[in-house]
Amino acid sequence: MTGFDLIIRNGTVVTASDTMLCDVGVRNGKVVALADKLGAADREIDATGLLVMPGGIDSHVHLAQPTSDGSVMADDFESGTRSAACGGNTTVIPFSLQERGKSLLKSVEEHHQRAKGKCYIDYALHAIITDPTPQALEKDLPQVVQDGVTSVKIFMTYQDMALNDAEIFKVMEATRREGALTMVHAENFDAIQQMTERLEQAGQAGPRGHAESRPIVVEREATHRAISFAELVDVPLFVVHVSGGDVIEQIEWAKRRGLPIYAETCPQYLTLTADDLDNANMEGSKYVCSPPPRDKANQKACWDALARDVFSTFTSDHCPFIYESDTGKKKAGSDTSFKYVPNGIPGVETRLPILFRKGVSEGRINLNQFVALSATNHAKVYGMYPRKGTIAIGSDADIAIWDPNKCVTLSQSMLNHNCDYTPYEGMELKGYPVTVISNGEVVAENGRPVGSAGKGKFISRGKSSLIPT
Amino acid sequence: MTGFDLIIRNGTVVTASDTMLCDVGVRNGKVVALADKLGAADREIDATGLLVMPGGIDSHVHLAQPTSDGSVMADDFESGTRSAACGGNTTVIPFSLQERGKSLLKSVEEHHQRAKGKCYIDYALHAIITDPTPQALEKDLPQVVQDGVTSVKIFMTYQDMALNDAEIFKVMEATRREGALTMVHAENFDAIQQMTERLEQAGQAGPRGHAESRPIVVEREATHRAISFAELVDVPLFVVHVSGGDVIEQIEWAKRRGLPIYAETCPQYLTLTADDLDNANMEGSKYVCSPPPRDKANQKACWDALARDVFSTFTSDHCPFIYESDTGKKKAGSDTSFKYVPNGIPGVETRLPILFRKGVSEGRINLNQFVALSATNHAKVYGMYPRKGTIAIGSDADIAIWDPNKCVTLSQSMLNHNCDYTPYEGMELKGYPVTVISNGEVVAENGRPVGSAGKGKFISRGKSSLIPT
Amino acid sequence: MTGFDLIIRNGTVVTASDTMLCDVGVRNGKVVALADKLGAADREIDATGLLVMPGGIDSHVHLAQPTSDGSVMADDFESGTRSAACGGNTTVIPFSLQERGKSLLKSVEEHHQRAKGKCYIDYALHAIITDPTPQALEKDLPQVVQDGVTSVKIFMTYQDMALNDAEIFKVMEATRREGALTMVHAENFDAIQQMTERLEQAGQAGPRGHAESRPIVVEREATHRAISFAELVDVPLFVVHVSGGDVIEQIEWAKRRGLPIYAETCPQYLTLTADDLDNANMEGSKYVCSPPPRDKANQKACWDALARDVFSTFTSDHCPFIYESDTGKKKAGSDTSFKYVPNGIPGVETRLPILFRKGVSEGRINLNQFVALSATNHAKVYGMYPRKGTIAIGSDADIAIWDPNKCVTLSQSMLNHNCDYTPYEGMELKGYPVTVISNGEVVAENGRPVGSAGKGKFISRGKSSLIPT
Amino acid sequence: MTGFDLIIRNGTVVTASDTMLCDVGVRNGKVVALADKLGAADREIDATGLLVMPGGIDSHVHLAQPTSDGSVMADDFESGTRSAACGGNTTVIPFSLQERGKSLLKSVEEHHQRAKGKCYIDYALHAIITDPTPQALEKDLPQVVQDGVTSVKIFMTYQDMALNDAEIFKVMEATRREGALTMVHAENFDAIQQMTERLEQAGQAGPRGHAESRPIVVEREATHRAISFAELVDVPLFVVHVSGGDVIEQIEWAKRRGLPIYAETCPQYLTLTADDLDNANMEGSKYVCSPPPRDKANQKACWDALARDVFSTFTSDHCPFIYESDTGKKKAGSDTSFKYVPNGIPGVETRLPILFRKGVSEGRINLNQFVALSATNHAKVYGMYPRKGTIAIGSDADIAIWDPNKCVTLSQSMLNHNCDYTPYEGMELKGYPVTVISNGEVVAENGRPVGSAGKGKFISRGKSSLIPT
Repeated sequence: MTGFDLIIRNGTVVTASDTMLCDVGVRNGKVVALADKLGAADREIDATGLLVMPGGIDSHVHLAQPTSDGSVMADDFESGTRSAACGGNTTVIPFSLQERGKSLLKSVEEHHQRAKGKCYIDYALHAIITDPTPQALEKDLPQVVQDGVTSVKIFMTYQDMALNDAEIFKVMEATRREGALTMVHAENFDAIQQMTERLEQAGQAGPRGHAESRPIVVEREATHRAISFAELVDVPLFVVHVSGGDVIEQIEWAKRRGLPIYAETCPQYLTLTADDLDNANMEGSKYVCSPPPRDKANQKACWDALARDVFSTFTSDHCPFIYESDTGKKKAGSDTSFKYVPNGIPGVETRLPILFRKGVSEGRINLNQFVALSATNHAKVYGMYPRKGTIAIGSDADIAIWDPNKCVTLSQSMLNHNCDYTPYEGMELKGYPVTVISNGEVVAENGRPVGSAGKGKFISRGKSSLIPT
Repeated sequence: MTGFDLIIRNGTVVTASDTMLCDVGVRNGKVVALADKLGAADREIDATGLLVMPGGIDSHVHLAQPTSDGSVMADDFESGTRSAACGGNTTVIPFSLQERGKSLLKSVEEHHQRAKGKCYIDYALHAIITDPTPQALEKDLPQVVQDGVTSVKIFMTYQDMALNDAEIFKVMEATRREGALTMVHAENFDAIQQMTERLEQAGQAGPRGHAESRPIVVEREATHRAISFAELVDVPLFVVHVSGGDVIEQIEWAKRRGLPIYAETCPQYLTLTADDLDNANMEGSKYVCSPPPRDKANQKACWDALARDVFSTFTSDHCPFIYESDTGKKKAGSDTSFKYVPNGIPGVETRLPILFRKGVSEGRINLNQFVALSATNHAKVYGMYPRKGTIAIGSDADIAIWDPNKCVTLSQSMLNHNCDYTPYEGMELKGYPVTVISNGEVVAENGRPVGSAGKGKFISRGKSSLIPT
Repeated sequence: MTGFDLIIRNGTVVTASDTMLCDVGVRNGKVVALADKLGAADREIDATGLLVMPGGIDSHVHLAQPTSDGSVMADDFESGTRSAACGGNTTVIPFSLQERGKSLLKSVEEHHQRAKGKCYIDYALHAIITDPTPQALEKDLPQVVQDGVTSVKIFMTYQDMALNDAEIFKVMEATRREGALTMVHAENFDAIQQMTERLEQAGQAGPRGHAESRPIVVEREATHRAISFAELVDVPLFVVHVSGGDVIEQIEWAKRRGLPIYAETCPQYLTLTADDLDNANMEGSKYVCSPPPRDKANQKACWDALARDVFSTFTSDHCPFIYESDTGKKKAGSDTSFKYVPNGIPGVETRLPILFRKGVSEGRINLNQFVALSATNHAKVYGMYPRKGTIAIGSDADIAIWDPNKCVTLSQSMLNHNCDYTPYEGMELKGYPVTVISNGEVVAENGRPVGSAGKGKFISRGKSSLIPT
Repeated sequence: MTGFDLIIRNGTVVTASDTMLCDVGVRNGKVVALADKLGAADREIDATGLLVMPGGIDSHVHLAQPTSDGSVMADDFESGTRSAACGGNTTVIPFSLQERGKSLLKSVEEHHQRAKGKCYIDYALHAIITDPTPQALEKDLPQVVQDGVTSVKIFMTYQDMALNDAEIFKVMEATRREGALTMVHAENFDAIQQMTERLEQAGQAGPRGHAESRPIVVEREATHRAISFAELVDVPLFVVHVSGGDVIEQIEWAKRRGLPIYAETCPQYLTLTADDLDNANMEGSKYVCSPPPRDKANQKACWDALARDVFSTFTSDHCPFIYESDTGKKKAGSDTSFKYVPNGIPGVETRLPILFRKGVSEGRINLNQFVALSATNHAKVYGMYPRKGTIAIGSDADIAIWDPNKCVTLSQSMLNHNCDYTPYEGMELKGYPVTVISNGEVVAENGRPVGSAGKGKFISRGKSSLIPT
């Protein structure tokens, strides 16, 4: 069997269910053969002793997204996909935000413009709906879904983004009709706002106040409410960035009742705690994200849930803001209140190495779970399977070759994002992606980009596997 | 021992914990002696073979309350307290509704005016807050609480009454500060409104649509949300008119977590079902109340919870609207939609006989539970104990003497309210109050009032037993 | 009203549901009047500022009970009832143990002999069945029940006492048929035995090993099993001495399913922990009882369950063994293994003062709960109500007058049992019984007995309130 | 790429996570290539329009197993593996039963003898331990495990098979030490025996009595007990043939607590009910198996749990006994009691077509779940992965080619077992295995065997994936 553009030789190929020693043959950007021994190819990569895994899919990423307070995200599609690629990813799904008062359709078009010619790897888009007008739901959404943006995220918090309950109901009706997957950021806006005011009044306006203002009760409440609306409208629901045990309890309670409720968690909820927001001199602002990191007990709850397959996916919620700048996290709320600190932390590049180290190397999950959580399930949940998310005949040759024994100390200096810090500075890792291949071409090696941006394409997605047929 | 105004002889006195055969001596409207044998008195009542129980307290009653749609309640304080007395009650707690845009303090004053000189039995008042302005919460509420209106009800549904989440937070902060008990009508307003519209569009606008538009999921959701806010603000919560298993699950879940969450249920959730709303010719409108009756499984869930002491109290939610009239339940929504049918059913007179029959006589609860659920716990929960709610030395002589073997077929013709129907027409009862005594004076005999209205006084209440000291 | 043998004046009378300031009139050993002011009597006790409560009933007490290893209990009926009386009790229910191979009927007779003429206060008896022969179940049990021993305890652990599952089934069938209440000591015998061997082999044979050998899992398992058998046979079940959260979870799970499952807890599970067994020089053996004390989290679980009325009763499980003697706790297992340390601790005298201090004074339960847990519920659960367990007209004048402000430091020297230590040495109490009255006569004052033993009578019990009629 | 012994062309290859259209190349009995297009081979099978799936593994099968009552199983290794192969299986794992009083090691040897030269497909063995002597646990078990029998099943019911709790503890200690997986048949022996006697005494000795004598409570109890012992010993546990909701609740409760508890279910619990045991003339005996089929609600509970991945595997519990014979199911208990009816039903051939029809075709599970439940998870759980259970490079060429549209009416006449009936007679199927390949050779076509017995080999298994490393 010959005529390959690329052969990856003798690696341990891992899928979401299988592990096998074999060669991988690639032609025209697709995987076309898996075999004990393939003939020659123009390019060959020796993967002896290495893991050959589907390139990661990060289905929760914010890039070049407009913000309601005018903060500018540190990463655009170029730096964001570069950073993603270097961290073992081959697809990202950023969000196209419809700003209140604006057109949903146009917001998607603008995001396509922002992405055009800038991506190192393939990308897809979720649509965020903040203004569910009849135009948005009845005219634009069908078009958007037809154009391959088949998931819709709604917010239950944030000024100018939070939907009220009637709007949630209407969006779910629309996603149900269009066969789009509904994603929800579940935190109670009013509660947070009230608690924020009280903390400010009490002089607890430092970064730690961010965590105090949104305890897990507000996330649990909103999760229960979102589940209830999904139950009323009879539509599957995907709860993003679950941060701890109380919310997991709601998710599993719903599953046991037979409701199609799904969820993800993120590295920050496995490794950080609210104590990280305590650091003096506004250092704590580096960890300000929503929901906030909780405590050790909630970390354990998230790990346990990950291990027993409660979570469908594991994402970064990469949402990078510069720390040191005039509008950066350090200054933004320093003289006023934590509520002015831009919400979000970088993580698209560190997501997988952290999961590998803390999950696989430390024995909490196995390699197949790693692949499922990092790639395959994303592809299925978001309608890109089998094109993406696996190493199978006919799939895109999106592959990350990992050295399971490579030891790395995480540091800002080694990362490829445009942000100026990493919340995981100094973390000791074991296992890192050494070669990342997108559509059959190497895009990153040893944590550095190879070649230039622009080859990444938009992936028009089909229906989520979570939507009943 | 002599000098009694009244002796009730040889009855079986029942309290929330005890049952004893004895005489009861009354002087100056108070119980002053319980003894095996008391000397003579001016008036004596032979209670041989009868049950001598604390007069019922109905802590959830609507009388002469203004409505947002202009419907007029069938009962004012005169007919309402007359009906209550004939059904074995000696105290009612109607609601003083603050209408949106109006003064909380004034609303209470107006209710006092409505009650003045009209009551057959004593009454207290709850305050409903629909407009939690700083004036209402910071100025009026302290005054209202000081004047003995120590409980505040909020609504999560109904046009012009539902509070949003920020308002719920603020009211709870205020009730916490003032030591008032927070009561909540938990149903999700937006969901109901959306589902109502869909049903109307689908041509399902008859009375049954009322039940379809507010399935138990909307009650469960609002209950979870109210519990969460109470948890955030750290305040006890009393959930009114719980209608079925899903909500009971939330209540017990909260209790197991150590949260001070309490609840009541009502006769309609033990004996009616949504099928009753199906009756043709708008007959179903007779059963339109919120939450709506559910199904047999939920009835059982409520009975089981009652038996195992999940509910603190059992109330009528008496909210009477005329059936046959130009603005009555029959006509109101007949050509348009169930949403125009006034919400509420009469029940202050039938509450206790139904509980006695279905609960005590059929073996689901015992006599002491009956007393606790019908009187004692109301007095404790609403700050009237030990003055009200028991037969004890020093307590008001509010006593209902029941014949446990008296058989009655419930019918509109025998009732003393001003409403023109009962939802329990034809129900076979066993056990009925034969003599009702308020402050030492007989106010009802054999289901008919004795004497005239006007002796009933306002009871200024103290702090709820559910509020930590 | 005159002609009383005794009047208790002006105290605060507390029942399981009520609290009232009044005089209590006693005649012929019965309470015959409660009134604001009673006339004169031969004897009067001024209870101004004091609490007048039903004398405690301790329904879980071991006195003069034969043991399988020949250990001798420190207390017989004389010292045991003396100690009980001084601690505020007026009735105890010790166990009549049927030894394997012996007659059930005869074991009860022997216990009557042991009690005869020795009791300071009234006593009843439970029957322990260890050998459920046809004779025992079909012939003796009906007789025993008819003679007023209406509760049967079975053991799921202990050599020569544990029943196997078939025997449990048979005993429950018999108690169901005879209308007797089934009580169960739920710990898995085999598991404990195996774990004991392993600990001994590992050289962990000190007192702490006792706790390690019977972790809460063995109690939870046996509880679930006992519940399951009760469900199969359709019989109520009373689980004794529940020690922590895992078991409480089972109890509440069963209750929510509608099963008639009830339980008690004891002071040791509220105030001691397994760490107490760690004390050097065999001091830990003073705390060896089964189930063993757990940890702080389980203490909290027990307190929370007590507060929300999960437990029907609160008992001492008084089971006293001398510490310093040739066969005492200190020596028994000192050179061999914890398994030779006699199981059980004294507590009949300290039960109520501890509950008062930690429960009432520290705000975890209220006074009415105290009365229910210490007296009234025992009387109801064990078929002695209304004769015992309350202060009501016609009830036995069994009354404990408490000074709620009396401060006491618990010490062995102040106690009246025959044991040589108390596990609660040095505990600071607030609230203590100052006068204890049995059948209208004072039997203890200020923690010391009054008069001599012998007036206590056997109480022939009727059917438990937990048995459906 | 050439040199294949066999190419399966153009089928849809399905694994536990992936689905791809490709050719499969086989050499020397192994899968060596998956590719879009492979060169020629000696033998080619056109799989256009067909599903190419891993051959089924039935990890719960009884063949030629001695029984305690002398009943003879209808299938030996020849007919059993023939039937299995025709039903889409390529590996079975029957049980090697250690009879009480006999050698564990020898029982395994005897089973090897019984299998020798008779198998159509590969087989492995589980060891059943009924007599956990020191010899069995300390000498034989290490040898047995080393010889590739790495799972041990214990029984909590059945005369001469049930272990007592001490024995369960000891076996778990031994399996923990040896790294073997513990499987448990969880039903409470004593309870069943007692209830059987009562039913016999009540004249309810027909087949239906079998179901009545072992309600789900006895299964739930034993499951909780087994979980508790696994928790005490700290060892993973696999609960076989779970029959309904109460047991699933225990399994999920344990999983949420972080315990390594796993389970399987079987076709009988998804499709039959206790009503099937009602058939007159002893027809009901055809459905006598343990646990018995339950009711529709429990069927749904099992399906729901299957869909949400609570069960690791799906097995037949094939345990065939002749219906019409002198010692058959019909006669065995006809004049006496259901307890003499041999326990067990045939199902090794029908397991997968039933799961395909009711699961995949009717939309309850997807194809990848089907593969996981029918093959892959068995291989992993029982230590045969990656040799067995998947279609991957290097794996044994054990493949079942299914026609998803083939319609079949199940009937005894089409089956290849030696039993004389099927409990699923007349069931309408859609989807059936058309070609079954074992180690690269066709062993069944269109439901009939190809070639002769004897090529099936013993598979020496390694450590279960459920055992922590």
